Amino acid sequence: MSVSSKLTIFNDPIYGFIRIPNPLVFRLVEHPYFQRLRHISQMGLSYLVFPGAHHTRFHHALGSMHLMQQALQTLRLKGVSISEEEEEALLVAILLHDIGHGPFSHAMERGIAEGLDHERLSLHFMNALNANFNGSLTLAIAIFNGTYSRKFMNQLVSSQLDMDRLDYLKRDSFYTGVAEGSINSERLIHMLNVAGEDLVVEEKGVYSVEKFLMARRFMYWQVYLHKTGIVAEQLLIQIFKRAKDLLHRGDDLQGSPALMHFLKGEFQPGVFTAADLEYFSQLDDTDILAAIKLWQHHKDKVISQLCNMLLTRRLLKIEIKNNQVSDTELKHYIDKVSQLFGISKTDASYFAFKGNIYNRAYNQQEQKIHILRKTGEVLEVTGASDHLNLVAQGETVEKYYICYPKECVT
Amino acid sequence: MSVSSKLTIFNDPIYGFIRIPNPLVFRLVEHPYFQRLRHISQMGLSYLVFPGAHHTRFHHALGSMHLMQQALQTLRLKGVSISEEEEEALLVAILLHDIGHGPFSHAMERGIAEGLDHERLSLHFMNALNANFNGSLTLAIAIFNGTYSRKFMNQLVSSQLDMDRLDYLKRDSFYTGVAEGSINSERLIHMLNVAGEDLVVEEKGVYSVEKFLMARRFMYWQVYLHKTGIVAEQLLIQIFKRAKDLLHRGDDLQGSPALMHFLKGEFQPGVFTAADLEYFSQLDDTDILAAIKLWQHHKDKVISQLCNMLLTRRLLKIEIKNNQVSDTELKHYIDKVSQLFGISKTDASYFAFKGNIYNRAYNQQEQKIHILRKTGEVLEVTGASDHLNLVAQGETVEKYYICYPKECVT
Amino acid sequence: MSVSSKLTIFNDPIYGFIRIPNPLVFRLVEHPYFQRLRHISQMGLSYLVFPGAHHTRFHHALGSMHLMQQALQTLRLKGVSISEEEEEALLVAILLHDIGHGPFSHAMERGIAEGLDHERLSLHFMNALNANFNGSLTLAIAIFNGTYSRKFMNQLVSSQLDMDRLDYLKRDSFYTGVAEGSINSERLIHMLNVAGEDLVVEEKGVYSVEKFLMARRFMYWQVYLHKTGIVAEQLLIQIFKRAKDLLHRGDDLQGSPALMHFLKGEFQPGVFTAADLEYFSQLDDTDILAAIKLWQHHKDKVISQLCNMLLTRRLLKIEIKNNQVSDTELKHYIDKVSQLFGISKTDASYFAFKGNIYNRAYNQQEQKIHILRKTGEVLEVTGASDHLNLVAQGETVEKYYICYPKECVT
Amino acid sequence: MSVSSKLTIFNDPIYGFIRIPNPLVFRLVEHPYFQRLRHISQMGLSYLVFPGAHHTRFHHALGSMHLMQQALQTLRLKGVSISEEEEEALLVAILLHDIGHGPFSHAMERGIAEGLDHERLSLHFMNALNANFNGSLTLAIAIFNGTYSRKFMNQLVSSQLDMDRLDYLKRDSFYTGVAEGSINSERLIHMLNVAGEDLVVEEKGVYSVEKFLMARRFMYWQVYLHKTGIVAEQLLIQIFKRAKDLLHRGDDLQGSPALMHFLKGEFQPGVFTAADLEYFSQLDDTDILAAIKLWQHHKDKVISQLCNMLLTRRLLKIEIKNNQVSDTELKHYIDKVSQLFGISKTDASYFAFKGNIYNRAYNQQEQKIHILRKTGEVLEVTGASDHLNLVAQGETVEKYYICYPKECVT
Repeated sequence: MSVSSKLTIFNDPIYGFIRIPNPLVFRLVEHPYFQRLRHISQMGLSYLVFPGAHHTRFHHALGSMHLMQQALQTLRLKGVSISEEEEEALLVAILLHDIGHGPFSHAMERGIAEGLDHERLSLHFMNALNANFNGSLTLAIAIFNGTYSRKFMNQLVSSQLDMDRLDYLKRDSFYTGVAEGSINSERLIHMLNVAGEDLVVEEKGVYSVEKFLMARRFMYWQVYLHKTGIVAEQLLIQIFKRAKDLLHRGDDLQGSPALMHFLKGEFQPGVFTAADLEYFSQLDDTDILAAIKLWQHHKDKVISQLCNMLLTRRLLKIEIKNNQVSDTELKHYIDKVSQLFGISKTDASYFAFKGNIYNRAYNQQEQKIHILRKTGEVLEVTGASDHLNLVAQGETVEKYYICYPKECVT
Repeated sequence: MSVSSKLTIFNDPIYGFIRIPNPLVFRLVEHPYFQRLRHISQMGLSYLVFPGAHHTRFHHALGSMHLMQQALQTLRLKGVSISEEEEEALLVAILLHDIGHGPFSHAMERGIAEGLDHERLSLHFMNALNANFNGSLTLAIAIFNGTYSRKFMNQLVSSQLDMDRLDYLKRDSFYTGVAEGSINSERLIHMLNVAGEDLVVEEKGVYSVEKFLMARRFMYWQVYLHKTGIVAEQLLIQIFKRAKDLLHRGDDLQGSPALMHFLKGEFQPGVFTAADLEYFSQLDDTDILAAIKLWQHHKDKVISQLCNMLLTRRLLKIEIKNNQVSDTELKHYIDKVSQLFGISKTDASYFAFKGNIYNRAYNQQEQKIHILRKTGEVLEVTGASDHLNLVAQGETVEKYYICYPKECVT
Repeated sequence: MSVSSKLTIFNDPIYGFIRIPNPLVFRLVEHPYFQRLRHISQMGLSYLVFPGAHHTRFHHALGSMHLMQQALQTLRLKGVSISEEEEEALLVAILLHDIGHGPFSHAMERGIAEGLDHERLSLHFMNALNANFNGSLTLAIAIFNGTYSRKFMNQLVSSQLDMDRLDYLKRDSFYTGVAEGSINSERLIHMLNVAGEDLVVEEKGVYSVEKFLMARRFMYWQVYLHKTGIVAEQLLIQIFKRAKDLLHRGDDLQGSPALMHFLKGEFQPGVFTAADLEYFSQLDDTDILAAIKLWQHHKDKVISQLCNMLLTRRLLKIEIKNNQVSDTELKHYIDKVSQLFGISKTDASYFAFKGNIYNRAYNQQEQKIHILRKTGEVLEVTGASDHLNLVAQGETVEKYYICYPKECVT
Repeated sequence: MSVSSKLTIFNDPIYGFIRIPNPLVFRLVEHPYFQRLRHISQMGLSYLVFPGAHHTRFHHALGSMHLMQQALQTLRLKGVSISEEEEEALLVAILLHDIGHGPFSHAMERGIAEGLDHERLSLHFMNALNANFNGSLTLAIAIFNGTYSRKFMNQLVSSQLDMDRLDYLKRDSFYTGVAEGSINSERLIHMLNVAGEDLVVEEKGVYSVEKFLMARRFMYWQVYLHKTGIVAEQLLIQIFKRAKDLLHRGDDLQGSPALMHFLKGEFQPGVFTAADLEYFSQLDDTDILAAIKLWQHHKDKVISQLCNMLLTRRLLKIEIKNNQVSDTELKHYIDKVSQLFGISKTDASYFAFKGNIYNRAYNQQEQKIHILRKTGEVLEVTGASDHLNLVAQGETVEKYYICYPKECVT
C-alpha cells in the first residue's frame, strides 16, 4: 500500500482533525527530526503556573500546517493563483518553521548554547532534510528564507499575521485555560487576501485585527510574562550558568551526551557542523529534567539548591517594577543571601539577580499589517482604523524585575 | 411537596446548569410577566445577520442571575458580609432588571411607544409584582433604584461591570458565533471585591478589564452595529411610523389589541396606569411579526412594501460614513425614490433616510471602573494601566449612515 | 458585481463558518420560501423545557448543507467520483430537504392540516422552485426522490446516517445544552465511503456508529420525548382540534389568512394546488402564537383556557407508564374535569386524554447501516460489532401517557 | 499573611477554575510528593497516537477534587449531612487517590517493579504524609480504605461513579480531542443522592448513567486500547524486561538512581520501607525517557533497537483478533525475526510476542450502580432500565493480539 493512498489524520482538540495532505509532509512528520518535537514543550516551564500547558512543538507545528491549508483554500477562492508545487512548499515551510527549537523552547538559546538561535537552527535542519529528500524542500526553504519572488508566501510563514501566530495564540490560550487570549483564527484567515504580492487583510477585518493584537497583548502580560513563569525560567538559566562554571573549573557533572556537548561548548555557533546538528537532534526537555533531577544531589550547594527549588516549585520571590532596579538594591539582596546561606557573594548572585521584560503587541516599524480597502487602496492598519487604540498597542511597555530568596524578607 | 424542596435547574449551553436558588425566585420565574420574556428576542432583528441569534430575554435574565450567584459566593469568600435577605434581593433585582423590555428589544422604545424606556417599565413591573408578593421585593427594588445604602449592590445590577453585561456579552457572542466577543465572566467575577462600599476589581484583573472593554467594543462594531442589522431595525421603525400615520388619518389597520393600544397612543408616558401595564404585558415579538405579515398585503403601498422588504430580507442599501450625510445627498435619493416608485416625496422619505450610530466602550465620565491596588489604594482604571489604550477606548466614535433602495444605484 | 464573485458566509456557533458554495444555492437561500424557515423553530415547543432551544429550520438547513460539503470532500479524497453537477444537486437537495416543514415543526401535520406530511410538501416546494429556476433543480429532485441511479446520493440526504441527522442531533444537543447528545459529525463523515453505490462506514468507525445511535436514543428520551414537551405539544394539538370544531359549528374565530385556510380545511391533501402552496408558504410559528394569544380571550372557555395554559406555561399533569392506560382510568379523569370545571364530558376530553410515545434508535428492518470491512466485505452494522448492544438499541421501546389538570389530584 | 487568607485557584481548560478550598489541601498540593505528579503523564504513551494527550496526574487529581466539591454541595442541598471534617477528608482522599502512580502510569506496575500496585503505593504515601501532618489525614485514609462507617464517602472516591472516573473520562476525552468520550460530569453529579449510606443516582438520571457507561466503553476501544498505544506500551515493557535481564547477567546499564533501585529489584513488594518510598518519590516519566534515550546507543542490539523503535515511533506491527493467537503462529514470527535480524530465538521473542486485552464497561458482579426510584426503592441499574442494552455492556469483550516487526511481512 502506498503512502499516498492513506488519508492520515491527527485528532486535535482545537480543530477537530488535522489532515496530512500529501506524502512528502507525511514522511517529514515521520522523520526522527520532527518526532523529536514531541518532547519539546511549547510553553517551556509555564506548566508550573498553568497545569494544562503541556502541549508540544509537535502539535503546534501540525496546527500551523492545518491553518495554512485553510489559508490557501481561502486565497484560491479569491482568485489568487497558487500552484501545486507552491502549496506543497508552503505546507512544508510552516511545518518546519520551528523545528530548530531547543528544550524548553527559549531556555536553550539563553542558557545552554548561546549564539544559537532557533531560526538559524531550523534552517540547518531544513537543509539536512533537503539533502535527505533529494531537493524536494528547495522551494520551501526559499519561501522560509524570503528569497522566493512571491512575497506573500513568506508572510504566511513569518509575519505579524502568519499561521504560526494564529496557531500558537489559540493553542496556548486553549491549553492554559486563559480564554481571553483566544483568537478567531478562522475569521482572520477568511479575511486574508493578496494585493500586489503582499498579504493583506480586507477592510471589514480591521476589528478582527485589533482584537487579535489585543489578545496577543493579553497573553503576554497574563501568561508569557507571568511572574512565576519568569522566575522559573530564570532559575533554569542560572542552573545552566552554574553548570557551565562547574565544568569550566573541572568539576564532575553528569548529563546526557547531547547536553554535555553544548554545555561544554564543544561547538562554534558560526560553524555549525553535521555532528553538531546530530547532537542537537538528540536534545529535548527530557535531557534537561533528567539532569536537574540528578544535579539536585550534587555536592556543589549552589547547583543542588537551584535544582531543588525548581523541582519542588519553591521558587525565588520576584518583584515587578515600572522603573529600573538599582545596583544598590541588588547588592543589598546579594549581601543578605551571602550572609543567610553562608556563601560567597559571587555564589549569592545565583540567587539574587535582576532583569527586564517587555511586550510589544504591534510594531509598525518592523513588520506592518496591511489593510485592503474596498477601493483597492492598501493602508497600514493603524491608518485604517480609529487609530489611537492601535498606536497605543504599538507602544513598547518595558518592566523590570528583581529576584531573591523568600528568606530575605522574613 | 413544597416548592422549596425542589432543586430546580435549567439547562444552559453556556454555564451548563442554572439553579433556581429559592422559592421566591421560583415563583417569579413562573409568573406570566416573566414567562412573557420567552418571546422577546435578546438581539432584536440581528438573526437576519447571525442566524443563531434567536436567544431570548428570558434566558439572559436567568443567566445574569446565575452570575450573580457566583459573584456573591466570591465576595463572601473574600470576607464581604452579605445577609440572606440581601442575597435574595440581589438575585431578584438582577432577574427582573430587563423585564420592562418590549418586543425586539429596542424597537419598542424607538418606534412603537416613544417616551417609554425599558428601565422605567421594569420598575413598573417590579412594583406590580411587589404588591402581588406582599412586599417581598421591597429591598430588591431599593437595590435596583440605587436607594439602598450599600452602593456595590446596585453596581452588581447596573454598572460598567454588572452581571447584566457579563452575561449578555458572553451570550450574544455565543449565539451569534462571533467568538472574538467572548469574555471570561468567571475570571472577571473572581477578581471582584468591595472597597468602601464600592465594587472594585483587584489589581491583577486590570488586563481582564481591558480585554472586556475591547470585546465589548468589538461586539458593537461587528454585531450590534452591523450594517444589515441597522437597516433592518430602521425599516421596522419606519413601519411603525407609517402605521401610526395611517391610524392617525383614520385608515383601517389590523393588529393585536396590545399593539394597537400603543400604536394609537392610548397612553401617557408620564402616567403609566395599571391598564397600560396589562396591555404591555401582553406585547411580545409575536405581535410585531404577525402585524407585519398582515400589513404586507395592506392597500397602502408604503407600508406593504416596507413590510415585504423586511419579511423577504430584501433590505435597503446602507452606506456608513465618517462624516455627516448632507441634506443635499439625502434629497437626491428621496427625489429618485419618488420618481422610481411613483410616490410623493413625503412617502419616499420612508425609503430614503439618514441617521447616526456610535459606540462608546468605556466612558470614564459616566460610570467608572475602579481598581483596588494591593496597597489598598483605589484608582480609576485608566489611571491603573498603561493607559493610552484605555483612553482610546473611552473615545466616542460616531459614524453616519444613509439608507436608500438598491434600485437607486443601478 | 456578480453573485458568484462573492464569498458568502454565515456565522455558525457550531461549525464556525458556513460557506455558500455557489450562485444557485445563494439564490435559493435568498428566496422567500427559504427565508420563511427563519420563523420555524427546529424543536417546536421544546424551548419551554430547554430555554436555549430557539434555533430554526433555516439554520439547520444551512448546517446540513455544510456537512454535505465535508462529506463530498471526504468521498472524493477516497476516490469516489462525483461530478460538479452532482455536487450542486446534492447541496441543493440537502438544503431543501426540510423546506416543507410547517409551524412548530410537527404540530402542523398532527393538528392543523392532517394528511399533509412535510416530505411531500418539501417536494411541492422543490417542484415550484424548479419551475422558477428553469429546471436547475431537476437532478436535486431526483436524488431527493431516490430515483437517481447513484443510490448513495439519496442516502446522504435521507438514511440512518444522512447529513440531516448528523446536523440536527449535534445542533439540538448544542442549543439545549444537553451535552450527552452531542455527536462527532466530523469523525463520522470522515469514516464514510461508498461500496457498490451504497453509502458505508469503514470498519474502524463501528464504535462511532454505536456512539451515534446511543446519543440519538439519549436525545429521544431526555429531550424529544421530555414529559413537559409532550404535554405542551398535545395542548397545541387540542387547541387546533377545538379551533376546527368551533369553525365547523360556525363560531367566530380570528387568525391569519394562511392559518384559517388550513383550519377551515379549504384544501385537499391529495390535490395540493399552487394556491395551497402559496398559503402554506405564508405560514410560520408567528401565525400560531399570534392566534393563541388572541384566542386566550375567546368566549369559548375550552379554547381560552387551553391557550392560557400554554402561554403561561401552566400545563397539564402527565404520567408516563410502561403499560397502556385503561379507558376506565381515562374516564375517571374526564368525569373529574367535567365536575371540577363544570363542563360537558365532551369538552372535558380536551383536558384529559391519553396516548403513546415510542423511540426506535435503530431499526435494521427499515434502513440499514452498512459497515465496510478492510477485506472489502460489506456487513449490516449489528453483524459487524459485538452485537448485543445494537440489537438492544433496535428494540422499540413504547411508553404510554395520560394527561389531566393538576387540580384533579389535590 | 496566612495561607488561609488566600483564595488560591488553578486555571483549568475544562472547568474554568479549580479552587483550593482550604490550607491543608494547599499544603498537600505544595508537597514534593504531590508536585512529582506534574511529571507523570495521565495517559502514558498515548500521546504517540493523540498528540494532545500530554496532561498529567497532577491536573487530574486537582480536577477530581474540583468535582468532589461539586458533589458535596449537591448532596448537602439534598439534605445529606456532611461535617466540615468529613468534607476536608473527602477532598484530601480524592486529591491523593492516585498519588502512588508510577511513571507512564501503568508501565511501572507491569514492567519496572512487579508486585507494586498503585493503590497500595498511594496508601504508603498517605501514611507518610499523615505522619508529616500530625494525623490530619487519618479520616481521609479511613475513607480511602473503606473502613469509615459512612459507605457513600468511600464510593465518592472509588466506585463505578466516583469523582476519579468522572474527571478522567472527561479530561482524557478533552485532551485527546475524541469528543465522543465526553461525559456530562455536572449532570451526573447533579443526579447523585444518598440512600441508606449508599451513593445512588436518582431515577431520572438513568439515561445519563447509560450514556456514561457507553462513553467509557467508547474510550476503551478507541483510545485506551488503541492499537498503536498497545504496541508502544508493550515495547516499553519489553525494554524494561531486557534491562532487568542485562542487569541480572551483570552488564553495564546506566540510569537514574531511583530507576536503578527498582530495576535491580532492591526492594520487597511486601515490605515497602521508607527508603523504598523515598526512591519511588523520585521516579517519574523523565527517568524513563532519559534512560531510553541513553540505551538506544547501548551495545546490546536488542535493547538499543527496542529503544530506537519507541523514540522514532517506528513501532512493531500489531494484529488484533477475536480468537486466541496460536503458539504456532507466534513461533512462526519468532523464527522469522531470528532469521531476519540474525539473533537467537530468545532474543527474537522481544520483538514478536502475543497477549490479550479486554474491556468491561460495567460489571454488575463487582461494583453496582444503584438507582433511587421516586418511590424510595433502590435498584441495581440494569434492573431500572430497558435493560438489554446494559446487560450487553456488562459483557466482557476480550480480544487478542500479536506483535512482530513490519519486516516480517514484506
